[in-house]
Amino acid sequence: MELHAEAIDLVTRSPTVVLNAADARELGVNPLDRVQVRWNGRSVVCIVEVTEELVPPGELGATERVGHLDGMVEVTLAPRPRSVQYVRKKLDGIELEPTEVRRIAEDITEDRLSDIELSAYVTAVYTRGFSSAETLALTEAMTGAGDRLSWDTDVVADKHSIGGVAGNRVTPVLVPIVVAAGVTVPKTSSRAITSPAGTADTMEVFCNVSFDADGIRRIVDEAGGCLVWGGGVDLSPADDRIIRAEYPLSLDPQGQLVASVLSKKRSAGSTHVVLDVPYGEDAKTGSLEEARELAEEFKKVADHLGLHLTCAITRGNAPIGRGIGPVLEARDVLAVLSGDGPEDLRQKSVRLAGLLLDACGVNADADELLESGAAERAFRDIVAAQGGDRDVSLADLTPGEHTHTLEARRPGVVSHVDNGLVSEVARRAGAPRDAGAGLELQRRLGEEVAEGDALLTVYAEHEEKLEEARGLLVGSEPIRVRPPGESVVEHL
Amino acid sequence: MELHAEAIDLVTRSPTVVLNAADARELGVNPLDRVQVRWNGRSVVCIVEVTEELVPPGELGATERVGHLDGMVEVTLAPRPRSVQYVRKKLDGIELEPTEVRRIAEDITEDRLSDIELSAYVTAVYTRGFSSAETLALTEAMTGAGDRLSWDTDVVADKHSIGGVAGNRVTPVLVPIVVAAGVTVPKTSSRAITSPAGTADTMEVFCNVSFDADGIRRIVDEAGGCLVWGGGVDLSPADDRIIRAEYPLSLDPQGQLVASVLSKKRSAGSTHVVLDVPYGEDAKTGSLEEARELAEEFKKVADHLGLHLTCAITRGNAPIGRGIGPVLEARDVLAVLSGDGPEDLRQKSVRLAGLLLDACGVNADADELLESGAAERAFRDIVAAQGGDRDVSLADLTPGEHTHTLEARRPGVVSHVDNGLVSEVARRAGAPRDAGAGLELQRRLGEEVAEGDALLTVYAEHEEKLEEARGLLVGSEPIRVRPPGESVVEHL
Repeated sequence: MELHAEAIDLVTRSPTVVLNAADARELGVNPLDRVQVRWNGRSVVCIVEVTEELVPPGELGATERVGHLDGMVEVTLAPRPRSVQYVRKKLDGIELEPTEVRRIAEDITEDRLSDIELSAYVTAVYTRGFSSAETLALTEAMTGAGDRLSWDTDVVADKHSIGGVAGNRVTPVLVPIVVAAGVTVPKTSSRAITSPAGTADTMEVFCNVSFDADGIRRIVDEAGGCLVWGGGVDLSPADDRIIRAEYPLSLDPQGQLVASVLSKKRSAGSTHVVLDVPYGEDAKTGSLEEARELAEEFKKVADHLGLHLTCAITRGNAPIGRGIGPVLEARDVLAVLSGDGPEDLRQKSVRLAGLLLDACGVNADADELLESGAAERAFRDIVAAQGGDRDVSLADLTPGEHTHTLEARRPGVVSHVDNGLVSEVARRAGAPRDAGAGLELQRRLGEEVAEGDALLTVYAEHEEKLEEARGLLVGSEPIRVRPPGESVVEHL
Repeated sequence: MELHAEAIDLVTRSPTVVLNAADARELGVNPLDRVQVRWNGRSVVCIVEVTEELVPPGELGATERVGHLDGMVEVTLAPRPRSVQYVRKKLDGIELEPTEVRRIAEDITEDRLSDIELSAYVTAVYTRGFSSAETLALTEAMTGAGDRLSWDTDVVADKHSIGGVAGNRVTPVLVPIVVAAGVTVPKTSSRAITSPAGTADTMEVFCNVSFDADGIRRIVDEAGGCLVWGGGVDLSPADDRIIRAEYPLSLDPQGQLVASVLSKKRSAGSTHVVLDVPYGEDAKTGSLEEARELAEEFKKVADHLGLHLTCAITRGNAPIGRGIGPVLEARDVLAVLSGDGPEDLRQKSVRLAGLLLDACGVNADADELLESGAAERAFRDIVAAQGGDRDVSLADLTPGEHTHTLEARRPGVVSHVDNGLVSEVARRAGAPRDAGAGLELQRRLGEEVAEGDALLTVYAEHEEKLEEARGLLVGSEPIRVRPPGESVVEHL
């Protein structure tokens, strides 16, 4: 069918065209079906939305994601993407060939799968699992499907955390330590989706974090490393789409996780990676056993790729650091870098940095690099290269002015800090959107408290949001009893 | 967040609101997330679309499905539907409690699940299976969630086919036979989705088929039965949504199939049902074994519901009847009712009608009811009650004027008719949208043919569509060799 295309202002996740109901009936498409749109030798598969009036018969409304569309286009029913049959095969419990896995990755990268098909893929990998061979094929297919960085050095270090622990702002301390030892670290991080702050949100308190591949190269040339948001480059286009399908049911199938992390590290040109695998009640891996199994699968696939991977299994049963929320975490980071700050954050950062330096074959003492101020100087170089204030001090980092302090109702020893609840309180207070919102933990796991001692303080930029956060604290107990310990339990 | 709602003309499957990107960011929602919209004591969960210009900040565009919306509304992030955790539990292979199954059915009925969650549900049932207890709970939950019909008689007969066989227009022959025996048959049927015609499309050649519950009651009062489209009533609101999620991957998990069919029959007030379970290459059940297993699960659940179910396992390896497409199938139906027509369609209809009459405890001979013209009179009564021409004749049923005949390239015996290919040719020719489009099979399975004999004739209403159908015939062989037999293999 020939239709006259016009741009329509509707923001969509996937390329979408809006058709008049009469044309949709004629084509035999229902809302959310796919059509192939061809013009000037180009061809895009689009999702269909249907209208009675917004677009008249004979016309086609093209959203921005379709690309610059104007004039006559040819619209036909899109063939079903080939990978749909491979998803079905996996659902039936049959191991896929590498070419079939690659085809799936390609169709996801090109946005050819509908939400229904994508969800079936994620649940198939979740219920049937991926063999190491399938995971390897997926990692290779996802690597280099988008942007790819390369560096003029043989050793490029990187770090990743499996996540699920509040605070845990290890990255902005670890990267400067490793950079201070002379190793290149082109670190990209995420923004918060369901948590009160991602590393990118915290770094944004200091400087810009949105840079494209050229920007990242310039910063790394200048400062030896970077601490930027991963969304400015597209290291693994399939990944965002897969995460969206995993999120509603909190599915995170092992094979997919391994492929997502390792493909991004390879696309970033990294050669040596330290992986933080926290375990505990609220972390992604519940038990030490599970954490070990996941770490082993990571190592197996990394070995095949020629990527040097060190896995650190860490305790993930409580927040790391005192602050939760962008500004409050930024304060912890700057305090640790200047030789002060929360001991658990300092210890974990130094320990992981040490493992990474060892792996890189660099003879340097992480502790010494931090104590000497070398890491702080490296951090300030990065901040400056990313357009921030090199001389930033704690006085510049002021949290929200509206505060509420939760006090201990009885004396005792802190036995439990509820990661999930603490995160939710920080979000209600406005984090990460309001950078100054969040909370500060005044007592840590194992500390003794007297009745009436401050346990935590909530910070908000807006009075109403503080009230929302307080509402959540009524009748709940984010802080409760057991002894702390070294946070790295083992590494392999 | 308070927003000013205005209607927006965008046809969507689910209640949808269009937000300005600024408001979406403030709320923390991404496209396709859900929000709760409250006004005047009402509350609807809506999918979010995002625009930069179509809707200004502070406003909300409400699609038709949201309902009549005007003035200020309160918009908040919608909580995750409770059933999502039960879908996750099923994915983990754990049997669900009846209350959990009911909650899933309720959330699907109320359109609270996104495509991603719905697809995860379907794949969970597909990979993990449903126990008979789960299927029973689902059937009960789906029954009466929408419209419900009731009748002043103890015996209400009904028929269903598992599908997958081209032609197979048994229903419009069987219903009048059973009605002629004095049994009430409120039959609702579907339109074609991927086939060249559904029973509703074929009946629409004779009369109206879209009636609401009151209309159906009037027709059944007048004519003793009806042959209407099921879309005019909403016997199982969850079903349409589930089918949409099953379709892309051709998933049709047994528990879901059993619950969908039986809940609709119960909502329609049926007490005695004959179920056609075809098996064969292109049918839904591939082997006799599979067909038996499916029939047994159907009977087990039906027994618990107190529904009298007779399952007829039939051969599904070739089309039934000569015509494929609405008008061409209507011609077969009218011919069989007037004592002529394709023998296979006649035989299968009489056989299934006989099984149903036996089950209903009615002492009547289906063959005799057809031979005597009683069934034809009952059919014409139904057509008249549905607003059609009681005196319709074959001369009124003219297929498309553009034709193409496929001839045998060598002599032999017809060994195979490709259901799928034949259906696709009929669809390319324009069926079911163009009622006169489709094809007629001139030779049936097992018949001898001489070189140059006509094998099939394609009919189209438009020359271009005939060409499209011809294109598909080039290099393919829809008709190929084995002996026929009685189509009912066994019943139980």
